[in-house]
Amino acid sequence: MEEFSLTCPIPISEYPHVLLAHGGGGKLMHQLIDKMFLPVFGDPNAIAHDSAALTLPGNRIAMTTDSYVIRPLFFPGGDIGSLAVHGTINDLAMSGARPLYLSAGFILEEGLPLETLWRVVRSMQAAAENAGVQIITGDTKVVDRGKGDGIFINTAGVGILEHSQAIAPQFVQPGDLLLINGDLGRHGIAIMAMREGLEFETTIESDSAAIADLVMQLLDADIEIHCLRDLTRGGLASTLNEIATAAKVTIEIDETAIPIREDVQGACEILGFDPLYVANEGRFVAFIPSEYRDRALQIMAQHPLGADACLIGQVTDKGRPLVTMQSKIGASRIIDMLSGEQLPRIC
Amino acid sequence: MEEFSLTCPIPISEYPHVLLAHGGGGKLMHQLIDKMFLPVFGDPNAIAHDSAALTLPGNRIAMTTDSYVIRPLFFPGGDIGSLAVHGTINDLAMSGARPLYLSAGFILEEGLPLETLWRVVRSMQAAAENAGVQIITGDTKVVDRGKGDGIFINTAGVGILEHSQAIAPQFVQPGDLLLINGDLGRHGIAIMAMREGLEFETTIESDSAAIADLVMQLLDADIEIHCLRDLTRGGLASTLNEIATAAKVTIEIDETAIPIREDVQGACEILGFDPLYVANEGRFVAFIPSEYRDRALQIMAQHPLGADACLIGQVTDKGRPLVTMQSKIGASRIIDMLSGEQLPRIC
Repeated sequence: MEEFSLTCPIPISEYPHVLLAHGGGGKLMHQLIDKMFLPVFGDPNAIAHDSAALTLPGNRIAMTTDSYVIRPLFFPGGDIGSLAVHGTINDLAMSGARPLYLSAGFILEEGLPLETLWRVVRSMQAAAENAGVQIITGDTKVVDRGKGDGIFINTAGVGILEHSQAIAPQFVQPGDLLLINGDLGRHGIAIMAMREGLEFETTIESDSAAIADLVMQLLDADIEIHCLRDLTRGGLASTLNEIATAAKVTIEIDETAIPIREDVQGACEILGFDPLYVANEGRFVAFIPSEYRDRALQIMAQHPLGADACLIGQVTDKGRPLVTMQSKIGASRIIDMLSGEQLPRIC
Repeated sequence: MEEFSLTCPIPISEYPHVLLAHGGGGKLMHQLIDKMFLPVFGDPNAIAHDSAALTLPGNRIAMTTDSYVIRPLFFPGGDIGSLAVHGTINDLAMSGARPLYLSAGFILEEGLPLETLWRVVRSMQAAAENAGVQIITGDTKVVDRGKGDGIFINTAGVGILEHSQAIAPQFVQPGDLLLINGDLGRHGIAIMAMREGLEFETTIESDSAAIADLVMQLLDADIEIHCLRDLTRGGLASTLNEIATAAKVTIEIDETAIPIREDVQGACEILGFDPLYVANEGRFVAFIPSEYRDRALQIMAQHPLGADACLIGQVTDKGRPLVTMQSKIGASRIIDMLSGEQLPRIC
């Protein structure tokens, strides 16, 4: 990765904070683009014009968008910039697409320190570079003080579909196994612990990551995949309910099989959260026919982002949309979709 | 265009306002998606999954993004929804791409009436349908009261490049003529007059529109085009300065040739604005070799969005980036880029 100055390239002595004029189309906006965005994100032609022109390696694509309003902007293990890159990459990967290009739309609040923006921009670029995607076009708007909250970021993404599998919730069927790529809850709990000012013996860090590379390895190995879904807002419980509803199937999961770290479990108890509903970024569930189990788990386990991959459940019946969990003491209970607001502004 | 109920599809008696939970990944968010977004924007499969899968008619594309933070949300001649669709379509058209698909990312403020969101969503769909583009994927985030401003919208867009012309500021050269598709300033002045509570004999309405169809007609007629640019933030003056800098050319415009309606001119004088710096949406400048002038003007004049198309200037020299204007009294003056903030939150 190219190294950029840690110091903000726009002299603090000049304009230490974002002004409304930074979004006004005039000299300050161009200074922001020329000194901050272009040197970091690269190709000046692509960004400086109204839109970026690209030649894709094929014409079957996936497109997605997500806005990021997480608070605080910086947290153990990440920040709004890396999250905005990981999240949109992961949404593309969940349709089986190889992520290629991202756009970045900033909504800045008047008064934001330019240093803060600079940290976020560098973090976005590092996350994009690590994941092999390019940020190719952008936009900056500024809203008056008190009408925003520091930085909101939208990233939209385009990826290429290189395989011919049909991967979507409606293709889930009885007999499918549910694999996940690791433990649940670290991202959400890292944020909430910080917001609530909780201190633990060791800091829980967000495990936000881009999982496209792991997904591509599964596809390249011809693992048959019926559905992929990342466990973001609403957590595992809400995700499985969405899929059960879309496919009209019953999904059974096994509580003892779901990996949750002890410190995360402890923090959930203190904060009053159920880890099944806590948001993640970089955790996903794959629905695959049983004959692919061993190979899929082997591929996942060899990847840094799948070291704790495991089987957590199966699809049992068609007809009745339902999610149930076999608990540690052997009882079975219904797992419903998140009904209130557990973790506001977690992504 | 399909007709939708004017009444919000989510019963007011239930949840009249946006709650944080509408962005939380649980039941309320799914109600919003199922009852409001999917019935209006169409293809449920495309939107319900994490990303939309598409087959493009080719593999040379343009991609762009813009966030919209305009205030007020509704104004004479338009609203934030139609603007968010027009603006991103126009950015694609300015690279010569035929706009095909848009994403829509909403950042809602807690407490926003759901009725307001419903009006905006319907307006987006109407604008998209009129322009022949599809809104195929979306996202909703909710921020706490006082941390947003009603509705912010990001739209990203993908279009297809069907021609082989190189259209960008750096291709502008001496001898090129500047054509615009109509009068300046109506959009910006409509907003500012409303914000300032100014009343004129007749209300000045925003002329926000999607100009891709007009641009496609020019390209389909094999008009050679060196650069296209829409006159948004910073207005004609800032746009021409950007192009003069990118192409290192001198651009001369003729004040008497620039069409500005009398009521807009009058409002500019009252508000203290120079119409050359006022933002538009749906006005563009085309740089073309002189031999294409008559045919290009004829094509533009026959289009509803180009009825007042005219020649406003030319590119004279290479080497020195400069924009000058021949004034009504015959003097020539330098036109600089917007240096402050003339019209905050105009798009």
